[in-house]
Amino acid sequence: MKHPTISLIERRVSANHFDASFTLTNAEIERLVDLATRAPTAYNFQNWRFVAVRGTQYKERLRALAYGQTKVADAGVTFIVCGVLPHHEVLRERLRPFVEAGFMSAATAAGWREAARQAYADEQKARDEAVRSAALGAATLIYAAEAMDLATSPIGGFDTAGVASAFGLASNELPVLLVAVGRPACGNWPQKPRRPVSEVLEIA
Amino acid sequence: MKHPTISLIERRVSANHFDASFTLTNAEIERLVDLATRAPTAYNFQNWRFVAVRGTQYKERLRALAYGQTKVADAGVTFIVCGVLPHHEVLRERLRPFVEAGFMSAATAAGWREAARQAYADEQKARDEAVRSAALGAATLIYAAEAMDLATSPIGGFDTAGVASAFGLASNELPVLLVAVGRPACGNWPQKPRRPVSEVLEIA
Repeated sequence: MKHPTISLIERRVSANHFDASFTLTNAEIERLVDLATRAPTAYNFQNWRFVAVRGTQYKERLRALAYGQTKVADAGVTFIVCGVLPHHEVLRERLRPFVEAGFMSAATAAGWREAARQAYADEQKARDEAVRSAALGAATLIYAAEAMDLATSPIGGFDTAGVASAFGLASNELPVLLVAVGRPACGNWPQKPRRPVSEVLEIA
Repeated sequence: MKHPTISLIERRVSANHFDASFTLTNAEIERLVDLATRAPTAYNFQNWRFVAVRGTQYKERLRALAYGQTKVADAGVTFIVCGVLPHHEVLRERLRPFVEAGFMSAATAAGWREAARQAYADEQKARDEAVRSAALGAATLIYAAEAMDLATSPIGGFDTAGVASAFGLASNELPVLLVAVGRPACGNWPQKPRRPVSEVLEIA
């Protein structure tokens, strides 16, 4: 039998139209972020932050910064998924519970810190990692929300500098993707056609 | 009742140890990529390519470029998930079936091409989009594989220039993440502890 996750992946569509009368509770928002943060990150950095934009005024402000896209305001909540530039010193804290529980030695944790220090000395690599972590978290948030029978829409088209300023992001935080979550309204497109697998896959 | 996708997200771990005797068939690899490409991309760009590294010699070559990480070679297959720098002209092809099926007007498709031309004129934004699309595809590949009872491990630590050269990537292709997929062996860690939600979530 097909695992329900396979069916969910197969049928997922990016919604354009949301029921503007529907909103999410704090508990629902917290649960979605709890699940999103189960996504993997390099070195267990967990270098992300989620701003759940739900208040009408905030949504309108975000909509304006997303070139007026209606779904940003009509969705129950629109998440600003931020990637954080990875700094090796935070791994002390992020890995501590794993070391204290006896799964990882202190020496291994120190090795990871040093590896991370070298890996992200290059600014472009640090930025790539922020984008990567945020996208992995956003994808997980999307599948979690779809599993809760909510509609979702990732939105890449927005004024990143404007969002950073309007929502008080720190200088090491990069708004990578908006994810609108809510109840779908009528008129949504079906899934857009995909390229044939043979065009995007090479087996070596 | 909890949707199985929620349980899957909750229990997923990044495997470090794989059963080296297990491999995947072409059909299984194709199915995984078919599912991975259901992930969303900006403008339906589908700006990704998947190199499934399965042959022993190729896996050894990739392992060397991933600083000797054993899992790269022990996994049944290790995917090189590449993001492609988005070029607006390819949208002509990518959106054509959707236009021909009557869902999107030719004018809207032309509007998307123009918006994409402007959005990615900035090189950094084009690179961000390549990383973002590949990460969304990689996350989807991971959840699809987990739903097929396979173990997975995303790997960010590898020599990107070396991989690009050894596997003949095009100049507009960026290897964003390796994803090892296979059957788990003994000795894998449990899921690493996550930060409390209150630390990574703000509700506005």
